[in-house]
Amino acid sequence: MPEVVFSVDQARSMRDQAAPGHNRWHPDIPPAVTVRPGAEFRVECREWTDGQIGNNDSANDVRDVNLSVCHMLSGPIAVEGAEPGDLLIIDILDIGPVPQESGSLPGQGWGYTGIFAKQNGGGFLTDQYPDAYKAIWDFHGQQATSRHIPGVRFTGITHPGLFGTAPSPDLLYRWNTREQALIDTAPQRVPPLALPPLGDGVLAGPLSGPDLDRVGREGARTVPPRENGGNHDIKNFSRGARVFYPVYVPGALFSGGDLHFSQGDGEITFCGAIEMGGFIDFHVDLIKGGMEKYGITTNPVFLPGNVEPRYSEFMSFIGISVDHDTDTNYYNDATLAYRNACLNAIEYLKTFGYSGAQAYLLLGAAPVEGRVSGVVDIPNACCTLYLPTEIFDFDIRPTADGPRKADRGSCASSS
Amino acid sequence: MPEVVFSVDQARSMRDQAAPGHNRWHPDIPPAVTVRPGAEFRVECREWTDGQIGNNDSANDVRDVNLSVCHMLSGPIAVEGAEPGDLLIIDILDIGPVPQESGSLPGQGWGYTGIFAKQNGGGFLTDQYPDAYKAIWDFHGQQATSRHIPGVRFTGITHPGLFGTAPSPDLLYRWNTREQALIDTAPQRVPPLALPPLGDGVLAGPLSGPDLDRVGREGARTVPPRENGGNHDIKNFSRGARVFYPVYVPGALFSGGDLHFSQGDGEITFCGAIEMGGFIDFHVDLIKGGMEKYGITTNPVFLPGNVEPRYSEFMSFIGISVDHDTDTNYYNDATLAYRNACLNAIEYLKTFGYSGAQAYLLLGAAPVEGRVSGVVDIPNACCTLYLPTEIFDFDIRPTADGPRKADRGSCASSS
Amino acid sequence: MPEVVFSVDQARSMRDQAAPGHNRWHPDIPPAVTVRPGAEFRVECREWTDGQIGNNDSANDVRDVNLSVCHMLSGPIAVEGAEPGDLLIIDILDIGPVPQESGSLPGQGWGYTGIFAKQNGGGFLTDQYPDAYKAIWDFHGQQATSRHIPGVRFTGITHPGLFGTAPSPDLLYRWNTREQALIDTAPQRVPPLALPPLGDGVLAGPLSGPDLDRVGREGARTVPPRENGGNHDIKNFSRGARVFYPVYVPGALFSGGDLHFSQGDGEITFCGAIEMGGFIDFHVDLIKGGMEKYGITTNPVFLPGNVEPRYSEFMSFIGISVDHDTDTNYYNDATLAYRNACLNAIEYLKTFGYSGAQAYLLLGAAPVEGRVSGVVDIPNACCTLYLPTEIFDFDIRPTADGPRKADRGSCASSS
Amino acid sequence: MPEVVFSVDQARSMRDQAAPGHNRWHPDIPPAVTVRPGAEFRVECREWTDGQIGNNDSANDVRDVNLSVCHMLSGPIAVEGAEPGDLLIIDILDIGPVPQESGSLPGQGWGYTGIFAKQNGGGFLTDQYPDAYKAIWDFHGQQATSRHIPGVRFTGITHPGLFGTAPSPDLLYRWNTREQALIDTAPQRVPPLALPPLGDGVLAGPLSGPDLDRVGREGARTVPPRENGGNHDIKNFSRGARVFYPVYVPGALFSGGDLHFSQGDGEITFCGAIEMGGFIDFHVDLIKGGMEKYGITTNPVFLPGNVEPRYSEFMSFIGISVDHDTDTNYYNDATLAYRNACLNAIEYLKTFGYSGAQAYLLLGAAPVEGRVSGVVDIPNACCTLYLPTEIFDFDIRPTADGPRKADRGSCASSS
Repeated sequence: MPEVVFSVDQARSMRDQAAPGHNRWHPDIPPAVTVRPGAEFRVECREWTDGQIGNNDSANDVRDVNLSVCHMLSGPIAVEGAEPGDLLIIDILDIGPVPQESGSLPGQGWGYTGIFAKQNGGGFLTDQYPDAYKAIWDFHGQQATSRHIPGVRFTGITHPGLFGTAPSPDLLYRWNTREQALIDTAPQRVPPLALPPLGDGVLAGPLSGPDLDRVGREGARTVPPRENGGNHDIKNFSRGARVFYPVYVPGALFSGGDLHFSQGDGEITFCGAIEMGGFIDFHVDLIKGGMEKYGITTNPVFLPGNVEPRYSEFMSFIGISVDHDTDTNYYNDATLAYRNACLNAIEYLKTFGYSGAQAYLLLGAAPVEGRVSGVVDIPNACCTLYLPTEIFDFDIRPTADGPRKADRGSCASSS
Repeated sequence: MPEVVFSVDQARSMRDQAAPGHNRWHPDIPPAVTVRPGAEFRVECREWTDGQIGNNDSANDVRDVNLSVCHMLSGPIAVEGAEPGDLLIIDILDIGPVPQESGSLPGQGWGYTGIFAKQNGGGFLTDQYPDAYKAIWDFHGQQATSRHIPGVRFTGITHPGLFGTAPSPDLLYRWNTREQALIDTAPQRVPPLALPPLGDGVLAGPLSGPDLDRVGREGARTVPPRENGGNHDIKNFSRGARVFYPVYVPGALFSGGDLHFSQGDGEITFCGAIEMGGFIDFHVDLIKGGMEKYGITTNPVFLPGNVEPRYSEFMSFIGISVDHDTDTNYYNDATLAYRNACLNAIEYLKTFGYSGAQAYLLLGAAPVEGRVSGVVDIPNACCTLYLPTEIFDFDIRPTADGPRKADRGSCASSS
Repeated sequence: MPEVVFSVDQARSMRDQAAPGHNRWHPDIPPAVTVRPGAEFRVECREWTDGQIGNNDSANDVRDVNLSVCHMLSGPIAVEGAEPGDLLIIDILDIGPVPQESGSLPGQGWGYTGIFAKQNGGGFLTDQYPDAYKAIWDFHGQQATSRHIPGVRFTGITHPGLFGTAPSPDLLYRWNTREQALIDTAPQRVPPLALPPLGDGVLAGPLSGPDLDRVGREGARTVPPRENGGNHDIKNFSRGARVFYPVYVPGALFSGGDLHFSQGDGEITFCGAIEMGGFIDFHVDLIKGGMEKYGITTNPVFLPGNVEPRYSEFMSFIGISVDHDTDTNYYNDATLAYRNACLNAIEYLKTFGYSGAQAYLLLGAAPVEGRVSGVVDIPNACCTLYLPTEIFDFDIRPTADGPRKADRGSCASSS
Repeated sequence: MPEVVFSVDQARSMRDQAAPGHNRWHPDIPPAVTVRPGAEFRVECREWTDGQIGNNDSANDVRDVNLSVCHMLSGPIAVEGAEPGDLLIIDILDIGPVPQESGSLPGQGWGYTGIFAKQNGGGFLTDQYPDAYKAIWDFHGQQATSRHIPGVRFTGITHPGLFGTAPSPDLLYRWNTREQALIDTAPQRVPPLALPPLGDGVLAGPLSGPDLDRVGREGARTVPPRENGGNHDIKNFSRGARVFYPVYVPGALFSGGDLHFSQGDGEITFCGAIEMGGFIDFHVDLIKGGMEKYGITTNPVFLPGNVEPRYSEFMSFIGISVDHDTDTNYYNDATLAYRNACLNAIEYLKTFGYSGAQAYLLLGAAPVEGRVSGVVDIPNACCTLYLPTEIFDFDIRPTADGPRKADRGSCASSS
């Protein structure tokens, strides 16, 4: 086990740790620790909402979650010698839930998947599912089951949802400018088109007073992925992956968290992964001047790990960029195509007895693959969703006998 | 080898076959043959442009291709007892290029990948690459190499780009209505937003005179995938796959073609697969009333085959829904995110000595995976492109030494 | 399709081809054709017994097979410039059954698996199963089913059982010497310990008279694998594999055949693969002086192909080197350990309703993996057999409910 | 993290734990704890030699190891309601090294692979490598590297070498009888053919005095795998595996240890895995009467896990059952065939600059697959060894340029 360079007491808020974390992207948040290229170390993380969600059968906590404090990140970690233009090599050596007895916090033997209410940001299918739902998942080594979605057991592709380097002042300014421009196109929209800086709930490591206020005014919210990495929610940042992050500030200032026990491609329920606190072990190194050498200017690149669970049989659902309710055609819209693939999968699973919300939660959490299949056959983009058949304890393939419908229980809903 | 129920003389146009094919979707095109549920049979196919592209070093043929005759399909094949509401089970037993000596037509030991000129429909990156380009691929059993993209060799995921059932008159009317409504939003756009029915070049099996004219006026163009399947360009419809197609007319009237030796997810160069003529062997069956039983109303579902080439190491590129040239943010736009992932991959490959057009052609043809990674982290959708590192005969992973730049030749371009 | 350099009329014996084949290893059998390094070409092969086995429901033909004519090989193929000490690079580009309408010969849409009678050589479990049995397999593209073993469908790992280079006179002498020495330790044994040269049934390309007699007297039988490759029966010599054969004579003199539609590790029923006639496409090249450069003195090395069927769930059986019937311990005997793993698998499958002979035939033909698991834990070697669960249309995993026993039909037996 | 039912203080001998372990198989060793069917729990294990091997550069400790105390096992664990004839279901939920800071004991951030000296039992190639050697491996999450075998990095298939149920008195008697009979065939052999009961070093949980003496006289040594499971050294008992153990005594009395960070098929160096202390998490259940229901009488069966490292390119070595030094043929001897495949791999790796001992250690520790390829082509059994090419940081495939020979350091040897 490598040295812990950022430790978290899971019983306390990220605000109350010896080294507090942060929940905004800003270059002025000082590093919590400095490491050398070549180092291996452990970072501990609290679950992304800082402990607002409980192991129970009501989704009221999901409905009422305070998102101003999200995501609670561990870091920043400065890397000696890192300079703007370098590539920061990050190897994910290991990752897991809180290594201690079962307890009341996510990661202590369990995690959760939530569908946010439309009033609170919603998810990918918020027009179809505007209310809050939740499923609790119990961990069995690398596998998960849920009392809220019976008949399913799968191996998680455990990964961090969010890691990234700090933006330069200039890059931060560009983010805020372009996102505000987008918001301004529909400022009253629910849910909003983007999340501007917000002073409420801001945490910036040890900063306080005017420094903290400035981070609140300027700091980028952590929800979207951007040029620095950030909230990618790429399920394949799994054990053994090597990620190359662009460096924008001296020391790189690497931060992250939002650990996921498992997640389907798209993380469609928004907090659709199985969310947990835990640990992540890294090795770091640098490629000096790597951004220019390799033409990497706008996003990280990565080599996925080679220990993802291996499934070989999938039930695959197709979607195209048509709104089938209104028979309206959209031009090459892969987002809509993937939404339709998800909706088609949900309708299919309902014929076996699951509720739509259960199926939606399952697609967010299970090792589902989402593929961009065709994006040139105008006007219809085509996306596909691959659902491993082996995660079900019954046969979900179509047969002449029809689906094996059964009572499949219910997920947690809000009151 | 199963019985050939639709045979093609590769030396002749699809117009001049004993049983001519068709190039529009219309319920009145009569079946060329009728098969029984449970049957196994072979369908022969000509390359989708009906032989307009040659094995040479100029992309003029791609630039000047006549798209009014595309796609040239084999069929329709009627299935005894199929009725609207059924699911047509199609097993892809085998598929391959023309099983004869090398020759001058695609499929006879070679195939091609083309980037269409913007004036002729363009491809996924037509703003960046508005001109026509081409690469010729030589087949070596299940592997392909190209004199136009040296340093690369890969195993194809051979599949049909396009198969589907005939639409009902009502469904056809809805297609035409919604696609015209889309075109009407920007009727002068180049390339157009969609392709309306077109009398030029129409082929409808044995129909002629007023019947043929009507198919020309009403028949849906074959480019987009729709509720009947159609031009999915899903690379995982490979050997061993089982597809469940909705049935909309009596007899199902199953047609298709557009065989691909290989293709990357998205088929980003438009005729981005390795295009060829060849054969495909099917097994058919029915699930009576299957659409309602399984809640399948708008698209086929499928079980992919289990003999895709197995790669285990990938170089992965990320894109988000930002126009980085203008620093403009788009809302959760997976199409743009995947476009950026592709552009990032191309810029990366250029540092090794490939031209942008070569890299673009490669991403269209090689067994590249495109994933919808995050579609909830507003405002930025996140897509990823997985490029197998093992297809290169040099190491493409980033190292401290920088990329191994070399002379990588050139692809075919237009004069 | 590459040029056919060795063609076979499937309706005729290998004796009656324009270029006859051969069925012994001898350096003096003249090449049928010469190819250059870098060439791609096709070799056609007849099924290994030269057509003695029929598509019927009696195993009498297996019981009475004349093994003096086996294996019927295509070749020799001389490679220009090949000299003793070189490595011959052989890429298996493609392989398949006879590409024509269904017919009466193995490879024409079907193949067979046979258990030899103990009197005729027997198989791996000949003490337990001394009689002849047979299963006919029907090909469906890359998949196979058998009316003799219902409930099973699998994708074949199609490969050649036997290819190799010609031995030098000295190497041939050493083979004959050491094998005769082994036979002499138990000359009356049934089945015999090894097969000495045999004049009956010998075929040596165009040779006749005294030259043919000499090949009969000196030529090594083709059953065992040896330093030249030969009858490896390694199922992973599949499409895409690259094999490096030692060269012992000028021109290498490469020959082979014994094509298998599928086979389990060990080929335990002896003609346990699914035997067929067909074609195989090669690319050849040389590494001059490669044997010394790479320390390769006694056997080929190879890189397996990457398109084997992908299964992810296995039922695994363990065997150790104890004769459990007599409670006798053998010292680190992996052969016995694997035999016990096979017997354990057969006993298990019998609880589902298969006969022992059916299960034995299945283990010989299906894509079963046999592993050497432990060979140091004295006195007991430990081997394991991995049976893919997905090839069965019922669940074969142990559950509290017990096995789902059913009528599973019967295989062909002898009268 | 599940409840720890057998805890180990890694700083103390297994003799000095609160609940001592045991190192012989005997039905009278009392259970350390009782669990219920359905329970999930953790078992902690000390490295199999009880801490005799150090993290240093001398193999003297391997040369001088005291094997009378091996293997040190955790347990027995009694399962409520288990009776002879049942199948004990064991799910391996998780497994890993000691979850604490780096330290001086195997499992604390490192492990070792040893080649035993011929005088001390030897390994699979003891005639070729009669002396003691050692390699120390450093753990990096799921990956390992060794200062003694530079140029290599791989993901471990972490698994327990040894778990099993207690034998009944009758079964134990049969073991002792048959193994003594084997020893009696060559009582002076070095190394011996088998290991009889031994009073020296015996540990039997809390037993002492005459009870302990009896276990010493009667208790079976733990080296071989037997009908109860035992020292299988099957590398695929990895995370997610489900094993079905025969039950021979009331309560099943399940024990084990010998955790391996990684191992190649065959564990050819004897302590050839990467040996470590650590933890293993189980779920247990029962199939009442399962042995008869499923015809399982002599060995466990299992379903391997689905998170093994995924490699797709292998360099494969072949061996046949000939002693090539003396040109002596053995009859269908898979042990010899696999030995030759190993020796061929070692000779090959030597051309790149490794010493034979380094290559031998590597084959014992890396995720190498050993296959029984042909066991019917008399007289020559054929086995194959699959070495993943991706574990090397240089290209090990044969090319016309010859091997890239370099200084590859040296492993630890004895003085």
